[in-house]
Amino acid sequence: MNIGLDMMGGDFAPIEAVKGLALYLKEFPNNCSVFCVGQKEALLPLLEQYGLKDHPAVQTVDAPQVIGYNEHPTKALKEKPHSSISIGFHLLTTGEIDAFISAGNTGAMLVGSMYSVKAVEGVQRPAIATFVPQLNGSTSLLLDVGLNSDCKPEQLNQFAILGSLYSKHVLNIERPSVGLMNVGEEKEKGNNLALGTFPLLENNQLIRFAGNIEGRDVFAGKVDVMVCDGFTGNIILKMAESFYEIACKRGFSNDAYIQNFHYETYGGTPVLGVNKPVIIAHGISNDVAFKNMIHQAEKMIVSNFCEKIKDVFVK
Amino acid sequence: MNIGLDMMGGDFAPIEAVKGLALYLKEFPNNCSVFCVGQKEALLPLLEQYGLKDHPAVQTVDAPQVIGYNEHPTKALKEKPHSSISIGFHLLTTGEIDAFISAGNTGAMLVGSMYSVKAVEGVQRPAIATFVPQLNGSTSLLLDVGLNSDCKPEQLNQFAILGSLYSKHVLNIERPSVGLMNVGEEKEKGNNLALGTFPLLENNQLIRFAGNIEGRDVFAGKVDVMVCDGFTGNIILKMAESFYEIACKRGFSNDAYIQNFHYETYGGTPVLGVNKPVIIAHGISNDVAFKNMIHQAEKMIVSNFCEKIKDVFVK
Repeated sequence: MNIGLDMMGGDFAPIEAVKGLALYLKEFPNNCSVFCVGQKEALLPLLEQYGLKDHPAVQTVDAPQVIGYNEHPTKALKEKPHSSISIGFHLLTTGEIDAFISAGNTGAMLVGSMYSVKAVEGVQRPAIATFVPQLNGSTSLLLDVGLNSDCKPEQLNQFAILGSLYSKHVLNIERPSVGLMNVGEEKEKGNNLALGTFPLLENNQLIRFAGNIEGRDVFAGKVDVMVCDGFTGNIILKMAESFYEIACKRGFSNDAYIQNFHYETYGGTPVLGVNKPVIIAHGISNDVAFKNMIHQAEKMIVSNFCEKIKDVFVK
Repeated sequence: MNIGLDMMGGDFAPIEAVKGLALYLKEFPNNCSVFCVGQKEALLPLLEQYGLKDHPAVQTVDAPQVIGYNEHPTKALKEKPHSSISIGFHLLTTGEIDAFISAGNTGAMLVGSMYSVKAVEGVQRPAIATFVPQLNGSTSLLLDVGLNSDCKPEQLNQFAILGSLYSKHVLNIERPSVGLMNVGEEKEKGNNLALGTFPLLENNQLIRFAGNIEGRDVFAGKVDVMVCDGFTGNIILKMAESFYEIACKRGFSNDAYIQNFHYETYGGTPVLGVNKPVIIAHGISNDVAFKNMIHQAEKMIVSNFCEKIKDVFVK
C-alpha cells in the first residue's frame, strides 16, 4: 500500500509534513509506504534531521515546481507539470500510489481530482465532506461543503449515499443515519431543492434516512450524515470554524467539547465520488494533522472505499 | 401613537406580556397608548395586579378566541376572527393601532402581515430580519431568515434596501454597509443566486455595498446588513441560536459577548416591506423581551419606517 504525500503544500511546508510523517511512522511503522513528493533539495535535509531519509517506508519523488496558494488551478496544473500536485495526481492515476494527500492549492486539488482521477461512473457530482463534532461525543459528516454551489435533488440523493458509504466503511458506523439540512422538520418545509430531495431520500433503500434537520441540529448529534448543497454546506462549515475561533479567543479552548473542533483531530477533507482516495488538507495543517491524514488515507485504502462506491454506482 | 400587543401569544401568555407592559410603562409612561388584545377575563385580574387596569396608556380589547401554536395559519385566521391575532391585524389595517406585536403563531403573523397589511407596492417579497451580535460590540441585521426559501437576485437586492432602511431609520446607523452572504470574497464566487445578485448590489445607489461575506463573517462585525435567501438565513439563524445554547450549557453564559446573544435584548423580528410595522416575537419571550418589543415598535412608528420604504419603492 503506497500513499502519496505532497510535502510542499500548506502554510508550513515542508517542515510540518515531515514532522507529521515522522509521527505517523513512529505509531504505524509497517502499514504502508509513503511517497514524499516535493523539492528534493528542500526535503532531504529535513528527512535526515527526522531520521526518515533511509526509512524503509519512505520514498522521495522529486517535484521541482510548486503551485502557489493563489495560482489559478487549471492554469497552474497545465503550466507546472513538475509540481508536487501534478506529479501526485500522475502517480495516482498510473497506480504507483493508492491515495494522494495535499495541503496545497485547494482548487488545484479539486481540478486534479475531477480531471485526472475523475468521478466514478454514475456519480453525477463528487462532493467534499467535513467532520462536525457532535455534543454527544460522536462525529458527523457534512457534505457537500463547497464543490457544488448549485445542486439538483438527485445530486443530494447521491451525496447521501456517498456520505453513508464513508461513514460505514471508513468511520465504521454500522448503519449511518442521514439528515437533510432544511428549515423545518416537516416534510413540506424547505426550498425547492429540499422539497425535491426529501422524497428521493425517503425512498432510497441504500441509506437510513432520518428526515429533515435544521441549523440548530448541526452539533446536536441527531444524524451521522448531514446532506446539503455546497453553498449551504460551505456557510455552515465556515460558521462552525468561526465558532471554534471565537471560543478560543474568549478563553473556552480548554472545554472538552470545544477541543473537538480542532481540525487536526480529523485529518483532512476527503473527496467523495472519485475513483481513487484523495484527501485535501487545511492550509494550516500541522504535524498531527498530517499524521492523521496519512492514517485516514490508509483507512480509505484498506476499506476499499472507492470500490464500495463503484459497487453502488457503476451499472 | 397606538401600539397593539397580543397578550395571548407566547409560551408564557398572558403573564409575561403584562409584566413586560408594566416594565415598558415604568420606563416610558407617556410615549404611547398600548392596546392589549386578549381574553378580557384572563387579562383584567393580571392588569389589576400589576397596577395597569386604570393606567391612562392602557386599553383592553377583548379577543375571546386564541390561535394555538400548532394551528394551520390561514385556516386559523379564517375560522377564528375573534382571536387576538385576527383582531390585532384588523385594528392595524383600520388604523386604530399603528403597529402590532405578537409572540403567537408565527405562521399566522406572517399570513396576517402578507394578506391583511400587505406588501408595500413595488416590494416583490417582504422579508423577516434577525439581529446578530457582532464581536466588535455592534449588532448586524440578517435577512431574509425564513419568509422566502427560494429567491431571485432582484429580491435579494430589495432585501438589501429594506435592511439598510431599517438600519438607518430604526437602528440609527448613518450609512449602513451591506454584505452578500456567499462562499468566497471574490465577485466570481457563489451559487447562481449570489452570482446574479452581486452586480445588482454593486450598482445599487440606494445601499452601501461592501462585497461578499462568508460564513466565518457572521459574527465578525464586517457589515451592518447581511443579505441572503430565507433558506440560508434560517439555517444561519438557528445555528447562531444553537451556539448560544451550547455556550450556556457549557458554562460560558457569563461571557460578555455570549450574553449579547440573548434574544430578549433585541426585541422581536420585524417584518420588512409591509405597509405597517409588525413585530413577531420569539415564543419564549419574557417580560424584558416584551418591553423591548414595545419600544422597538415605537421606534418603527416614530421613524416613519414604513413611509421610508414607500418613498423608495412606490413609483
